[in-house]
Amino acid sequence: MKTIKQLRFMLLLTLVTLNVSAQFKMTKPILSPEISADSKITFRVFAPEAKKVTISGNWMPGWGNQVELAKNDTGLYQLTIESLPSEMYTYSYFVDGVKSVDPNNVMVVRDGTRNESMFMVPGEKATMYGVTDVPHGTLQKVWYSSPTLGLTRLMYVYTPSGYSESTEKLPVFYLLHGGGGDEDAWTTLGRAPQILDNLIASGKAKPMIVVMTNGNPGDAAAPDAAPAKKEAAGQNNPGGMGSGKFEESLVKDVIPFIEKNYRVISNKDNRAVSGLSMGGMQTLYLSNNHPEMFSYFGVMSMGLVDMSRFGGKNDPEAQLKGLEKLKASHPKLYWIGVGKDDFLYKSAQDLRKFLDDNKFPYIYRESEGGHTWTNWRVYLSELAPKLFK
Amino acid sequence: MKTIKQLRFMLLLTLVTLNVSAQFKMTKPILSPEISADSKITFRVFAPEAKKVTISGNWMPGWGNQVELAKNDTGLYQLTIESLPSEMYTYSYFVDGVKSVDPNNVMVVRDGTRNESMFMVPGEKATMYGVTDVPHGTLQKVWYSSPTLGLTRLMYVYTPSGYSESTEKLPVFYLLHGGGGDEDAWTTLGRAPQILDNLIASGKAKPMIVVMTNGNPGDAAAPDAAPAKKEAAGQNNPGGMGSGKFEESLVKDVIPFIEKNYRVISNKDNRAVSGLSMGGMQTLYLSNNHPEMFSYFGVMSMGLVDMSRFGGKNDPEAQLKGLEKLKASHPKLYWIGVGKDDFLYKSAQDLRKFLDDNKFPYIYRESEGGHTWTNWRVYLSELAPKLFK
Repeated sequence: MKTIKQLRFMLLLTLVTLNVSAQFKMTKPILSPEISADSKITFRVFAPEAKKVTISGNWMPGWGNQVELAKNDTGLYQLTIESLPSEMYTYSYFVDGVKSVDPNNVMVVRDGTRNESMFMVPGEKATMYGVTDVPHGTLQKVWYSSPTLGLTRLMYVYTPSGYSESTEKLPVFYLLHGGGGDEDAWTTLGRAPQILDNLIASGKAKPMIVVMTNGNPGDAAAPDAAPAKKEAAGQNNPGGMGSGKFEESLVKDVIPFIEKNYRVISNKDNRAVSGLSMGGMQTLYLSNNHPEMFSYFGVMSMGLVDMSRFGGKNDPEAQLKGLEKLKASHPKLYWIGVGKDDFLYKSAQDLRKFLDDNKFPYIYRESEGGHTWTNWRVYLSELAPKLFK
Repeated sequence: MKTIKQLRFMLLLTLVTLNVSAQFKMTKPILSPEISADSKITFRVFAPEAKKVTISGNWMPGWGNQVELAKNDTGLYQLTIESLPSEMYTYSYFVDGVKSVDPNNVMVVRDGTRNESMFMVPGEKATMYGVTDVPHGTLQKVWYSSPTLGLTRLMYVYTPSGYSESTEKLPVFYLLHGGGGDEDAWTTLGRAPQILDNLIASGKAKPMIVVMTNGNPGDAAAPDAAPAKKEAAGQNNPGGMGSGKFEESLVKDVIPFIEKNYRVISNKDNRAVSGLSMGGMQTLYLSNNHPEMFSYFGVMSMGLVDMSRFGGKNDPEAQLKGLEKLKASHPKLYWIGVGKDDFLYKSAQDLRKFLDDNKFPYIYRESEGGHTWTNWRVYLSELAPKLFK
């Protein structure tokens, strides 16, 4: 009886002539980008029907410049560029004028509403913000209620390696994205979890919790994570970026939620806030209006700007009063970082002048380059080690 | 003195003539896809230089079929398709033959090595696996040590709404992806967090923890999340899919990690395992080799196959012994789901015959369609309510 069953079963297995190709097939892939040992990079795309293929990458000078790929007689377009320094790069193809991610590169990152292909050139920067062989923190996508904004909202919370096994209370770093971005930005383009993993593992930064919210006061979450009706409503930025509403929700909704649900030290000396561009504006607002909440401030690629352009108002008297209040609260760090080519360079200098004129101490970091994620990743790598020490 | 400062500050603000366009500019976007009130869908792409633009979408019959968009005299290509039933759809453009995501659609999902544009047609399915206005669980990206595989690996852990406020211990559902996929698959294409949020909120499913691992035994994590050296090593699938190594790591490494770090009920009646395709194969392996660990099994789009094709071996005697052991363990549910057009349909029927011949009870769900995420999302929506009851 058992033998017959066995035979029948073996027969069945033999008869199963599966076409597993749809799920499991392996084809020889076109390698793109290919990074050689001497860091030359070759981009490829098979496009026998296309008249012209160009590439636009964030290592190119200017913004939006394109370089042509050359077509060979098989229809393969190819371009090899000289060695690039270690960095995370993004690029797009334009196939007969239409922007496209590289179909042969699985790595795609979203920058606001744009999707771009991504690659990392090995070396110092890749070690700084790549996934390396160190203990990793946990990244959580957490929904919280924001009565201030009338929304249930999504944020990321990074807890460092060892958090769940320890009883130690930790400081919290609130890290804010720029205009056009959302809660995903610091975890993808910003590489914050990897940067913190690497800094903490090397002892350069203290273990800390990092909270990355959505800084657009009208949005519940990023486009692919928000409830459909919120998207449909298109109620982005009620009152504008300069309204202070997001900042109020950070103080009234986010911080209490974090301090209730995570093992944190609940005082100003254990709270830091930093942001880039719009997030830098929000950091300035918080430094002026809630210096009692934070002891560490980081303003990236922002300075004094005309707030009326962002739905706020220019109120020099309030600005001065805010600074007096900030001075009285004795923050431990006020850090400004900006690139020489940043379109907000002058406003950062205006901020410095305002602080100098009012004898308020700060650390100033001027980098090469402009309003870019390359700079913001570097700023995060340099700022995080200065926190909570 | 103060008045002079104020005046100077106002002057500075006035002089700041920022070019904020790079970070904040608003241009009138091309809407694609546009879904009308009667669910007609219009795809658009501006491509004046292109000779031909086609679209391939997963609502089309067959696999890889393409339909042409029509060009108007401004260079805008456009296609309107008739009403589609509520569902999450994926598609790509081909611009003069080159595959591309829709540059005007921010929503991109990765299916293994392919990136595709995505949209959701409102209605029943969108309510089932869209982000809706219900309490949401938390999704964690967690690294864990796998001595069995010699890797530190990444997985997702979904904890239901209310988990952090409660002291109740919860059951755990281990949910496995298919060949070519990774730990991201059930959270993106599979919509598992949204499906569970919706089922739990409506009372259809019990609150549970869902664990979504990377089922490729040679990989630490998805391509964009793995350490560079692991990617470079290309050590995918040591011993093949059928080696049982991933399954051993689930039992020896993952389950102990979860039961140590989360508030769970640690017994077989509170553990479920289900997977699609390769994950279905892994579920079958676990049902045969570790029936003492789980009381609920869900086999999606899989059945009896020639294991030698996947680095395993065909051992009917072991298969029968496994079934006898499984029977003796009295599992509470053995569920099989497959589509009529699935290329593994016959192997699913072979599995049924094997179980019937051996008088082993199971629930069989036959759906329309084939080896698709549409089916796997529906199967998850139907299976999760049957667990832990």
